[in-house]
Amino acid sequence: MDYHTFEFMKLAIEEAEKAALRGSVPVGAIISLRGRVISSAGNEVLKNKDPTAHAEMVAIRKACAQLGCSILENCDIYVTLEPCSMCAQAISLARISRLYFGAYDDKYGGIIHGCRVFEHSLHRPEVIGGISETPCAKILQNFFKNKRN
Amino acid sequence: MDYHTFEFMKLAIEEAEKAALRGSVPVGAIISLRGRVISSAGNEVLKNKDPTAHAEMVAIRKACAQLGCSILENCDIYVTLEPCSMCAQAISLARISRLYFGAYDDKYGGIIHGCRVFEHSLHRPEVIGGISETPCAKILQNFFKNKRN
Repeated sequence: MDYHTFEFMKLAIEEAEKAALRGSVPVGAIISLRGRVISSAGNEVLKNKDPTAHAEMVAIRKACAQLGCSILENCDIYVTLEPCSMCAQAISLARISRLYFGAYDDKYGGIIHGCRVFEHSLHRPEVIGGISETPCAKILQNFFKNKRN
Repeated sequence: MDYHTFEFMKLAIEEAEKAALRGSVPVGAIISLRGRVISSAGNEVLKNKDPTAHAEMVAIRKACAQLGCSILENCDIYVTLEPCSMCAQAISLARISRLYFGAYDDKYGGIIHGCRVFEHSLHRPEVIGGISETPCAKILQNFFKNKRN
């Protein structure tokens, strides 16, 4: 971990907060290359009526458009929540170097939980979980508490 | 299986053939609702420089845009190749009812092989593999044979 880690996770949290404001499950993602942010996104499933528009997927698509290629070698991704199997496999297909995530997801997660996608995938990024875990989890808890009220 | 099954798989094969013509790994997908095709797509990874643009993902996004919602309940998907973990999880998130696929993929597949995503997912579509398996596999074999020459 370098000095960017918590700074970039803070930006991912800001993306999650923006998603919450538009009524979407608050998850945010940032992709960086050599210490520079190249894309950022929040969950856009509701906004775009697209079940594939998780924060990670949108950030990967934006980063590829930005760099003009379908491979994100030497890039890192920062996500506020443990990615699901779809996003995990997309991270592997994009050959992202490192995955930093915040809160653990024992229900839908596909990294440490569920399918453990990287145990089966050809490209296996380095994984660092639990970065800024408390604020990342808090946004989700508040969102679902407000939903129930 | 009803009388549409092989007809729809034939359309998926045509999408795979179109993908091959543009130099992409030839996989095609069709989504149907009550016996009617609502979206069709081939692999667009190279074309769009997007690692997430597998045929199934593109077809799911198109179908959601077509129906104006992020859920594809009562829809079926026909794919020429066993979906990978990314596409399998997207099929589950979209709550597609049935997955028909052609060729088996012991290297990258995530349904019968690898992660076996539906063993961990909340929504589990019915799965019918091996539909028109020989022509589906043949397109891929020819594509990779020509690549090597």
